[in-house]
Parts: sequence; structure tokens; C-alpha cells
Amino acid sequence: MFKLIPSGTVTSTPGFLAGAVHAGIKSDNAPDLAILYSKVPCTAVGAFTTNRIKSAPVLLSQKRLSRGQAQAIVVNSGCANACMGEQSLVDASEMAKLTAAKLDISPEDILVASTGVIGMPLPMKQIRDGIEKVGLHPDGGHDFAKAIMTTDTKPKEVAVQVDMRELKFTIAGVAKGAGMIHPNLATMLCFIATDASLDAAFLQSSLQKAMEISFNMISVDGDTSPSDSVFLLANGLAGNKAIGFDNGKVFQETLNEVCSYLARAIVQDGEGATKFIEVTVERAKNPSEACQASRTIASSLSVKTAIHGSDPNWGRIIAALGRSGVEIVEEKIDLYLNDVCVLRKGIPLPFDRDGLRTTLSHNDNALIRICLNLGDGKATAWGCDLSEEYVTINSEYTT
Amino acid sequence: MFKLIPSGTVTSTPGFLAGAVHAGIKSDNAPDLAILYSKVPCTAVGAFTTNRIKSAPVLLSQKRLSRGQAQAIVVNSGCANACMGEQSLVDASEMAKLTAAKLDISPEDILVASTGVIGMPLPMKQIRDGIEKVGLHPDGGHDFAKAIMTTDTKPKEVAVQVDMRELKFTIAGVAKGAGMIHPNLATMLCFIATDASLDAAFLQSSLQKAMEISFNMISVDGDTSPSDSVFLLANGLAGNKAIGFDNGKVFQETLNEVCSYLARAIVQDGEGATKFIEVTVERAKNPSEACQASRTIASSLSVKTAIHGSDPNWGRIIAALGRSGVEIVEEKIDLYLNDVCVLRKGIPLPFDRDGLRTTLSHNDNALIRICLNLGDGKATAWGCDLSEEYVTINSEYTT
Repeated sequence: MFKLIPSGTVTSTPGFLAGAVHAGIKSDNAPDLAILYSKVPCTAVGAFTTNRIKSAPVLLSQKRLSRGQAQAIVVNSGCANACMGEQSLVDASEMAKLTAAKLDISPEDILVASTGVIGMPLPMKQIRDGIEKVGLHPDGGHDFAKAIMTTDTKPKEVAVQVDMRELKFTIAGVAKGAGMIHPNLATMLCFIATDASLDAAFLQSSLQKAMEISFNMISVDGDTSPSDSVFLLANGLAGNKAIGFDNGKVFQETLNEVCSYLARAIVQDGEGATKFIEVTVERAKNPSEACQASRTIASSLSVKTAIHGSDPNWGRIIAALGRSGVEIVEEKIDLYLNDVCVLRKGIPLPFDRDGLRTTLSHNDNALIRICLNLGDGKATAWGCDLSEEYVTINSEYTT
Repeated sequence: MFKLIPSGTVTSTPGFLAGAVHAGIKSDNAPDLAILYSKVPCTAVGAFTTNRIKSAPVLLSQKRLSRGQAQAIVVNSGCANACMGEQSLVDASEMAKLTAAKLDISPEDILVASTGVIGMPLPMKQIRDGIEKVGLHPDGGHDFAKAIMTTDTKPKEVAVQVDMRELKFTIAGVAKGAGMIHPNLATMLCFIATDASLDAAFLQSSLQKAMEISFNMISVDGDTSPSDSVFLLANGLAGNKAIGFDNGKVFQETLNEVCSYLARAIVQDGEGATKFIEVTVERAKNPSEACQASRTIASSLSVKTAIHGSDPNWGRIIAALGRSGVEIVEEKIDLYLNDVCVLRKGIPLPFDRDGLRTTLSHNDNALIRICLNLGDGKATAWGCDLSEEYVTINSEYTT
């Protein structure tokens, strides 16, 4: 149905330009200020942190999106512009105004995002100079992806193309996030660009649905931040008949794929992560209980550390399942670890413990599958192991 | 009102005997099987894990306590006797029977607890031989305390004596627990013995109240286990007029103190912990919101790692507060870190960052105090930092 664009990035979507500079907000020489711009105004939707402390860029962008339209996004890394009182809002607003002036569009059409340390003033001189210096290019997506990184070790970007007889469009996305990642909404920034023409109400619903199976199903460390934002801009340049609730299936599935790809990329690059953990809970009482169980297991420190040590200590998985609060009947539970059944109908099966330990240690992925045999609820959550390196990253530097 | 008994232990309470042996359940030579015994039958109450997976000893002891009476407790470490199907129950029941025969009392008066690896069969030969070998002594409490340890680095025990004109009694307790510790109920075992004479309904309510401000307010790693149990036995040998709801104030306050002491001891000995973290949230909308906020902050990995690195990165504390879901008004929040005010009415105050870093690094305790300035809710939660050592302990060994 859709194909991956090789080395795709957010500017793989026709009509989008991007660029980035090192403005001097971060202390190293990495790019830290970026702009994403569409040649024409876009239908725009977003989703934001559920944290009760919200950064100024989140408050500003939420307000702007009430109009359902945007044309550009300005982002900085290195400073979250959060918890600085009134000044935060003044600064976020100035970022928007400067970008609007540069692009010769209305400040109302600018969205803002900031990520980094909380409780530090935004260095406005660097921001002002940086915005002036950013050049926008049709292949500027990769630079944009690098500029939004904080403790990320690699950029996260993807672009897919749908090419059917009557429907051709592209969806491309870029994300950052390596720590403070937890469901609802994962602590992260994500920018998605499409050239499809879409009904605004459908677009919002579509983003919400895609998030439920992607960004809301990942966990690095259980924390969330005041900055979490996902933006989706649709510029309509594909010229298709507007996609809405009645004909939205292909778009929804493509968007699901883009969001899932980026969500997995975020946990694979989790702070200090050496292993990707996929937890699938099947035949739960209902889908929401499957979600709850899989997320609890993927977030459990004792599970994460066992996986880090390649220890097939399934008792910790069962303990996390029991703690999740979902309905279970112990005598009905089947549990598989990397496809080896270790528990059937609640009774441990003999298995080659050393063999499974070896399999776990030689694989970058650990697969946990639980069948509760109670109903038809199914969900998959993604996480990563907890390593000594996670502690070092988070204790030695202010991030 | 009450005084601490120097080097107090659970057998500091008159009428209680205890003893322990190395039965061979744990692979090292440490004691791993213990019995606590009262010379006379006790009024007995308990509290158990909220995990939906419950170990066989928990199921058995819950059932026994429905009678409100017990005279002895048999405990092993090294194996949780959980998730082994029907066999777990058969084994737990045999442990009780053997102990009853040894003590010449009814099996109905025996409670059972097991802690250790989940999903391994209880080595019954070692258990049988061990129960036979245990000797009971009036000063056997210290041995009992050592025998229930798993990843604990030190025993946790306390005894206090109330000596008022008309009311004299002792309450002593012993606990274990270093990992898989989280509120409701913390993952741990605790055995409390008193010689006070008490009304059974009051005793249950009193334990619940004490737990709410102690074991339910500690977190090491967010996990809970199928084995968590707290037992409270009152043998009445103090001969006082029975304590009930009308005259229970002194007993309640003393029990609160015993439970708080043991709860703090558990997190101070948290796996890999180098620092004790105390989080007090004041003037929350109500007490339950104060609880929720303080517990969320004490459990946050990003807060725990910042404290580990002595980093006065208060933004992470505010992010965890925001995630807790309690009502906050950003412009009303005051935040103190080791008594230094770093945020007043939501605005960062200038502070000596290097000085505070030094204070944090030279102290074993980190004190976080937040004033929400909204109501009169107040609560304190206790946690510990997250160190590389926690990861090592939990990934290198099956625990």
C-alpha cells in the first residue's frame, strides 16, 4: 500500500522546506535551532503533554492550533523554556514573531517547540541571531532532525509514500526523545508533514488514533515532561480529493506506520538502552486492559534490569503483570520469552535456561508475549532495558 | 511517651521467642529459615500485597487470619513459593503443619511467609530439615531478622516501650525489603509483635492507619511483588485493660513510629541506594493529593538519578509534580531543596548552585519540600536514589 522513501526525512514531503543552525544554546557545537516551513498554509493539528506543568511553547502552540492552521514551526533544543514564569511566554512569543518576520507570514501561523533543561531562561540573543541565520532548503530535513536532538544519539526520521491510482501522497516525520519517555504522551517532540489534502476534524482524530498505538505505548523511564508535543501539518499540495472519515482508511494506516516507526526509534535510542523490549498482551479481557498490562510490564524496572542482564527471570514479568491491576486468572496465563513458552496455564514449563540466556544476550530485541486467555483484547508496548549507562547519563549531567 | 529499646528486636516483646537456621534454600551460608513464636495465642491481623498474583503463603496466611488468631509464623527466604500452581499451596500448607507439630499447636495458628525468586519450587527437603533444626530463644529476634533478608545489606529491626502509669507495653518489629519496593503495599515482609492486649477490630484499623503513613509511602523501584505481607501479633501478656477505638491513641502513635522507622530503614537500604530521599508536599488541596504528589516525586527516575549525581536540577522535581496529576497552580508553587528555596511562587530564585551541589554530595539525605499553597493537605514520602549499583544488582543475579 505504501513504500518507504530511502533516507526519507520530513522534507521528503513536497512543499516543505527546513533548515538548522548552531545558535549557541547548547554548549557543544551541535545544531540547536531549526525551522520547518511549508510553501502554503497547512491544516494543522497537535497533541501535547498531559503534565500539569506545561512549557510556554506548549501553551502558545496549543492556542495557535485552535485555529487549525499553521505554516511553520520554530524549534530549539538545549532549553525547555519552562518554569520561568511570564518571561517564558514573552520569549516563546518573540520566537514566533521573529520567525514570522523572516518568512513574511503571520505570527499566528507559527508554532513553537523547545526541549532541554527546565527552569533556565531562554538565551534570547542566541535565539534571535539563530533565527536570522537559518537557511531553508528542500533537503533540509536531516539538519532539522539533528537540531532537535538532546540526549538522543541519532536522528529519528522516516518518510513513506502512498501511490495508488486515485490517491498519491507522502507522510514524513521526525522525532526526538531519549529520556523522560512514558505513555500519555511520551516525552518527546515529533513533527509530521504530509502533502495530502485532509478534513481538519478527521486529521485530529487520525493523529489521536495513531498516537494511541505508538507514542502512547512507549516507555523509557516512566517520566513525562512539560514540553511533549506532536505536530501534524498537511499542506494539501498532493491535490487529492479531501480525505475524511468516509475515505480515511489508507491515510490512517499510513500515519499509524509513520508514528509506530518513530515511537520504536525513540525507545531503541532510549538513554543508555542496549536492548529493545516488545511486550504483547493477547486475549486480555478487553483492549484497554491489554494496553494497561503491556505498558506496566514494559515500564517495570525489575523487568528492564533482568532483560539488561539477559536473565530469563519471568517471575518479574508475572509480578509486573499482577501489579498492573488488569483482570487475570493465574491458571490461564501463558507466557513466552523470545518465542520460548516458559509458563503454560500458570505452571512453569521446563526450559533451557542457559540457552534462553544466550539467545537474549545475542539479540538486540527481547520479545515478551503473554496470553491471558480471557477475552479478545490485544496490545503491544515498547520499552528498553535499564542500564548502568542510563543512571550515568542522568546523574552526571543536567539534562 | 515511648522509649526506644537499645538494640531492640522482635523478641524484645515479652512472650515472643524466635530462631533461625541455614536450611540450604539460599546458595550462600546465610540463615534462610526462621520461626517467630508466642508463648500464648495472639490476636493477629495482617495486610497483604495488592498484586493480583499472590504467592501461596500469602493466600494461606490471608485465610488463616480470617479467624483473627495466630501463635507462630514460619518464614523462608531464597524462594517466594509463587507461580508454581497447586504445588505452591501444598508446600506452604506443609510448612505450616511441620511447624505446628514442632511447636505442638494447631496448624490453624501458624502463618507462613516466603520471599525470594518467583517461579521456583520450594526445596521441601531443606524446609523440612530446617524447621526441625530451628531452636527458639527469647533473644532469637536478631537471628530471625537476618534469616528473612534477600538483597538487604542489613537487618531492619526496632523495639519501643511505652511505660505510662496505667499503660505499659512493648511493640517490636522486623522487616526485610530492598528491591521491588513501591507503595500499596511496599514489597517487603514485616513482622510486628506486641504484648499489649487489644480489641481485634481496632488492631486491624490501627495497622492500616500506620501503614498509610509508612509502608505505603516508600518506593525503591516502583515494583511490587506477590509476597508482600505485614503481620501484627498481640499476645496480651502486658495484662493491660484492652485497648480499643476509645483509648487507642497511644498505641496508634507508637505503632506509627515503629512502622515509620522500619519503612525508612527499608528505603535507606534500597538496592544500590547511596542517598535517602524525603519528599514532603504541604498545603496541597487535600491529604490524598499530598500523598499522590509526594509519592510520584519520590518514585521518579529522573529525580532519583539527579539526586544520585547531587545535581540540584529542580526542573525534574517540578516535571514529576506536574505528572502526578494533582491540582497545582504554577504561580503558587514554592520548592525547597535541602532547605534552600529554589522556586518561589513558580519563579526560579537565584541560588548558589555549586554550594547546593556540595551540600547534596556531602549528605546522605536529600530533603525535597514543596508548598503548593492551595489547601491543608500534607504528606511525606520516602525513597532513595537510583545508582548504577541498582542496575548491576538487578541484572547480574536472579533475585
